[in-house]
Amino acid sequence: MSLVVVGSVAYDAIETPNGKRDRALGGSCTYIALSASYFTKPCIVAVVGEDFAPEDRALLESKGVDLEGLERLPGKTFFWSGVYSDDMNERTTLRTDLNVFADFRPKLPPSYVHQDYLFLGNIQPTLQSEVREQMREVRFVGGDTMNYWMLHTRDDLLATIRNWDFLLINDSEARMLVHEHNLRRAAQKILDLGPHTLVIKRGEYGAMLFRRDTLFMVPGYLLEDVFDPTGAGDCFAGGFVGYLAERGFDLRNNHIDVHELHRAVIYGSVLGSFCCEQFGVERFHTLTRKEIDQRFDEFRRFTTF
Amino acid sequence: MSLVVVGSVAYDAIETPNGKRDRALGGSCTYIALSASYFTKPCIVAVVGEDFAPEDRALLESKGVDLEGLERLPGKTFFWSGVYSDDMNERTTLRTDLNVFADFRPKLPPSYVHQDYLFLGNIQPTLQSEVREQMREVRFVGGDTMNYWMLHTRDDLLATIRNWDFLLINDSEARMLVHEHNLRRAAQKILDLGPHTLVIKRGEYGAMLFRRDTLFMVPGYLLEDVFDPTGAGDCFAGGFVGYLAERGFDLRNNHIDVHELHRAVIYGSVLGSFCCEQFGVERFHTLTRKEIDQRFDEFRRFTTF
Repeated sequence: MSLVVVGSVAYDAIETPNGKRDRALGGSCTYIALSASYFTKPCIVAVVGEDFAPEDRALLESKGVDLEGLERLPGKTFFWSGVYSDDMNERTTLRTDLNVFADFRPKLPPSYVHQDYLFLGNIQPTLQSEVREQMREVRFVGGDTMNYWMLHTRDDLLATIRNWDFLLINDSEARMLVHEHNLRRAAQKILDLGPHTLVIKRGEYGAMLFRRDTLFMVPGYLLEDVFDPTGAGDCFAGGFVGYLAERGFDLRNNHIDVHELHRAVIYGSVLGSFCCEQFGVERFHTLTRKEIDQRFDEFRRFTTF
Repeated sequence: MSLVVVGSVAYDAIETPNGKRDRALGGSCTYIALSASYFTKPCIVAVVGEDFAPEDRALLESKGVDLEGLERLPGKTFFWSGVYSDDMNERTTLRTDLNVFADFRPKLPPSYVHQDYLFLGNIQPTLQSEVREQMREVRFVGGDTMNYWMLHTRDDLLATIRNWDFLLINDSEARMLVHEHNLRRAAQKILDLGPHTLVIKRGEYGAMLFRRDTLFMVPGYLLEDVFDPTGAGDCFAGGFVGYLAERGFDLRNNHIDVHELHRAVIYGSVLGSFCCEQFGVERFHTLTRKEIDQRFDEFRRFTTF
């Protein structure tokens, strides 16, 4: 069961109270694919420039990520730089150079179009729709978005998510999407927009899963040290969809035990927490499935009563 | 098994986006006792003025609260007024009139000193110590405090909590108490100060329980409407200690199954959530033990994976 992932591959300059990196591999597609690779084979659709380093390509390959859909264009790879506040709850973007990402028109290689699962990372909603239309027989499709698209391309966004099985966004985005502060009411309004499953990420405070008939909540994993939160939300997405793909669920036809969705939220939380332990994607150099499953078990111990 | 509760009884003027009350029964002791009354007999130690209304006394009596330790002095009852921000995450105090509470010197009636359980609400640490010394054979003692005492009477506070079984504070207070932002590390430092059990309340984000060998986390109950959060933290305390007292646990000698402590945290969360559903203590006019147990079961459904 393979998972197609669309999003950005980037170089990030990151500064946190724990140190800095001038040029670290990043981007939503990178984090999602690396996290999902512990559960399934991610097939990525993204674009990089001529400066994309062989060692970064090698990291993705070493995790079994299918790079056939990774386009390489003349120019430079998407570059982002940001700095975190002392408590790491706030982040200021210093610079965003779209570079080759500016003209990204995702094209699926023929080998991708019959894959079972599709996760659409945060890119322009019409591009997300174009990718969705290229897929032939998906068993689930879901994705992420952000406040920018809610403000500037709201109609496109609503048309895009109408046929998704799940939407995965953070709490402030959920409130903004339906203009409702109370999360319980906001969630019900979002479920009216199309997706039958909604996951709301709350950063260090955990995550929630909503469906018409059910609610699931998990607190955040309490780390001894948060080194760098960059990519944690995307890693959550990768763990969540990776687990669902590994288990072979057909969300399209709603063939799933809700407890499996709950477990997918836990795996998302686990991957998000590991991501914060080192800079950028560095934790993935050593992270093992055994460590992931051990932290899953820890979540059970920490929340059982 | 009776529980002695020390704290304030007050009249509050509260304004939230949902409305206002000019003079509502409040105070930490009131909220703690009302919440604990669903589990055990609370014996309160507090002071009111001549303006204390018969109907407020009647509410406490109707819940089986022992009022022998409720002193009535010439003058007015403690008065507080505050207003909440639109999202209710911030509260501005408009006025604090200590009135008879200014000279409060808690004296335990003879019938109280042999009770089993003691909860010291947020008052001056030396007064908390004086009450503790009047008790003869407690099976657990714990309490609450606040940033004011950390800043102005730190040595007294540290001496006071040294012999407590548990401390129950919110996340910003925990960070301030040991000058450590990371909650996991802050918790370990607080456990070095004396209490073997620490509960950190995080408002809408839930609560955590720390001991040397264990950690428990629960997300906040997701209300459809938060009417008025005043007293929610004290109701959490009342549910937590009330359940422990009902079950007859001897925390002093550490005779407890940790899962029972986890359940006490859930009951605390349940009582805190009910408190927010109406203004001040109004929800307690109709709240039943059956509703409390139903919400406890809901917590289990919402967090099981």
